[in-house]
Amino acid sequence: MKTLLVILDGLGDRPIKELGGKTPLEAANKPNLNQLAAEGICGLLNSVDIGVRPGSDTSHLALFGYDPSVYYTGRGPIEAAGVGIELKQGDIALRVNLGTVDKKLIIKDRRAGRISSVKPFEEDLNKIKINRVQTIFRAGTEHRGALVLRGPNLSSAISDPDPHEVGLKVKKITPLEKGKAAENTARVLEEFVAKAHAILESHPHNKERVKANLLPANYLLARGAGVVPHIPPFPEKYGLKVACIAGGGLYKGIGRLLGMDVLPVEGATGGANTDLNAKFNAVKKALEDYDFIFMHIKGTDALSEDGDLRGKVHFIEKVDAAIPIVTSVKNLLLVLTADHSTPVCLKTHSADPTPILMHGEGVRVDDVKEFGERPCAKGGLGRIKGAHLMPEIMNILGKSKLYGA
Amino acid sequence: MKTLLVILDGLGDRPIKELGGKTPLEAANKPNLNQLAAEGICGLLNSVDIGVRPGSDTSHLALFGYDPSVYYTGRGPIEAAGVGIELKQGDIALRVNLGTVDKKLIIKDRRAGRISSVKPFEEDLNKIKINRVQTIFRAGTEHRGALVLRGPNLSSAISDPDPHEVGLKVKKITPLEKGKAAENTARVLEEFVAKAHAILESHPHNKERVKANLLPANYLLARGAGVVPHIPPFPEKYGLKVACIAGGGLYKGIGRLLGMDVLPVEGATGGANTDLNAKFNAVKKALEDYDFIFMHIKGTDALSEDGDLRGKVHFIEKVDAAIPIVTSVKNLLLVLTADHSTPVCLKTHSADPTPILMHGEGVRVDDVKEFGERPCAKGGLGRIKGAHLMPEIMNILGKSKLYGA
Repeated sequence: MKTLLVILDGLGDRPIKELGGKTPLEAANKPNLNQLAAEGICGLLNSVDIGVRPGSDTSHLALFGYDPSVYYTGRGPIEAAGVGIELKQGDIALRVNLGTVDKKLIIKDRRAGRISSVKPFEEDLNKIKINRVQTIFRAGTEHRGALVLRGPNLSSAISDPDPHEVGLKVKKITPLEKGKAAENTARVLEEFVAKAHAILESHPHNKERVKANLLPANYLLARGAGVVPHIPPFPEKYGLKVACIAGGGLYKGIGRLLGMDVLPVEGATGGANTDLNAKFNAVKKALEDYDFIFMHIKGTDALSEDGDLRGKVHFIEKVDAAIPIVTSVKNLLLVLTADHSTPVCLKTHSADPTPILMHGEGVRVDDVKEFGERPCAKGGLGRIKGAHLMPEIMNILGKSKLYGA
Repeated sequence: MKTLLVILDGLGDRPIKELGGKTPLEAANKPNLNQLAAEGICGLLNSVDIGVRPGSDTSHLALFGYDPSVYYTGRGPIEAAGVGIELKQGDIALRVNLGTVDKKLIIKDRRAGRISSVKPFEEDLNKIKINRVQTIFRAGTEHRGALVLRGPNLSSAISDPDPHEVGLKVKKITPLEKGKAAENTARVLEEFVAKAHAILESHPHNKERVKANLLPANYLLARGAGVVPHIPPFPEKYGLKVACIAGGGLYKGIGRLLGMDVLPVEGATGGANTDLNAKFNAVKKALEDYDFIFMHIKGTDALSEDGDLRGKVHFIEKVDAAIPIVTSVKNLLLVLTADHSTPVCLKTHSADPTPILMHGEGVRVDDVKEFGERPCAKGGLGRIKGAHLMPEIMNILGKSKLYGA
């Protein structure tokens, strides 16, 4: 039996007047999702815990059975994994923006005029040498990248140089706790940022930008330092060969961090304009080779954050139309849920639980006939937490370890 | 108000095609259980936790409010209590088979030809003297028994001599952790096993067996070493005079370990052929003297492990037919649930939750009219854990301690 876990990011919502008191999911025309609900078991899920409003990072860790209170050390490690850096336990990983500063180190733009890529700087920034510490810089999308510090005596307890506001001077990096490790790390990062600034100031690509009347990407703004924890890889933890199919970098990063094969899909954008058919077809193909597919769909969340009610309803209908591509796969355990709710009225994550459905041979069937927040509240799974999801899946797969005798 | 807790072992199941998508419990004709459900409150229960596939031992400890992560140290102590050894905190208890080995200590039969009892060896094995350690051997059913090591400087961190396979040589017992206690225990057990082998080889009962062309029970195969923890007796923990009515040795062992009076019932076999009327009549009688009866019924699990679908349905119908023997008892809180699910399609324990019903004066009534997995999913108890069961019972009994003021 194979497993497909579809995360419809930010799917959960609240009753909306314009929809006659229904949520976008309830209002959507979704015959296929309703059939899956009728044939399977439903419930409500809080990825971290009841009343907790989770980030995208903590929620996904929790859903895969990695307690975020143990494995979440900041966004840095996930971003660094997302841009493809091979992390080692003990690495200090940071998110990085390349921004624009003036001669007095006053921030003029935190995103260097939304530069399309910082890839042209990657090679030269990786030439920086720091005594006893290896540094790895990797470009991400647009102005973004990740930086990893590797070596002895390092700590993530350092302040961010990023003042998070235009017109302010970049901040000195300081240790946030006593001890040599934090002091050393602050010094190393200061040195790296200074050397990077010197390189970027005189970099040919920036000279071209200035000539073209564009802002130069001349300063490295780091944040979200986190130490890379020991993470038992998903394939070892569960004995399942696993692939990740996602458009957004963060979700690919989570996949990589957990030891999943991240499969590229042409047309997967990590937004509402993604090619859903291409993604579901890629999932169907991957199910031939893998035991477990983590499929991430961002559109529901992106549209919620835009407050685009009709867009969210329509996007759910598009997911419903595409899902028969995979429901024809035999011996499939299909699990459909979200990482958190993103009510369109709030345009941000909330702690409301998300609907969940499980469908496949061996799943107990309940009386829920429709996939929606209100019907799922009466489902046979009850109200579960993210930490319960993988154990419930392993139970259906017949792979639960016996506790006791 | 008296309490009867009926554990229908392995009751929970999954939807089955031959039963029109119903579970055995749902398919069974059970007017009495349905009436109890209609008049009481229902729910779903995971004895240990959601997604955990529990053994028979851990699940029962959890149901009685003894956290298995604290009180479960291996099967040994439960088996030793089951054969009637009075355990003391710190004892090392082991399950024992008497098997047959040849001159080179190669296992010929792990059960000595399913010998009917090892009682004839009990007295002589208890004459073995080991320096500073008291040893207690007690026969169980057939080839089974239990061994207890009592004394200073003992540990359960020792390897099993039992290779669990015919044709292999018995294994040397080795310490599994550093320190004198484990080394000492391995040495003591080696010495006991060697002395037992010498006694058994020349034992008159074995000589008779060989003459009768039966395999001699000439070697002691120990396993499941566990240190006896301090277990607060059930009567003290809850202030309830408690009896256990069970056929299977394991369940009597759990009862004894928790300080219950284990009442003998003629015809209680611990299998599907048990005399249910005799057991319910024994319960009815015991309710005159006791506050709380733990009644264990094994047939549902035994038939599930045999994959006997029709047998399981029929056995549930027999339980339904017998249950009016106790429902006539006045002022009774009747709680009916299982330790775990044993789906007939799997023939083994699963992590699926089990249905539960509570019936009696003071119990809130919900809308569930039928006792089954699917209706119970909508019950008023919701989805609870074993750890919640005794607190819910104590609440109905009016015996919950006030937390705060």
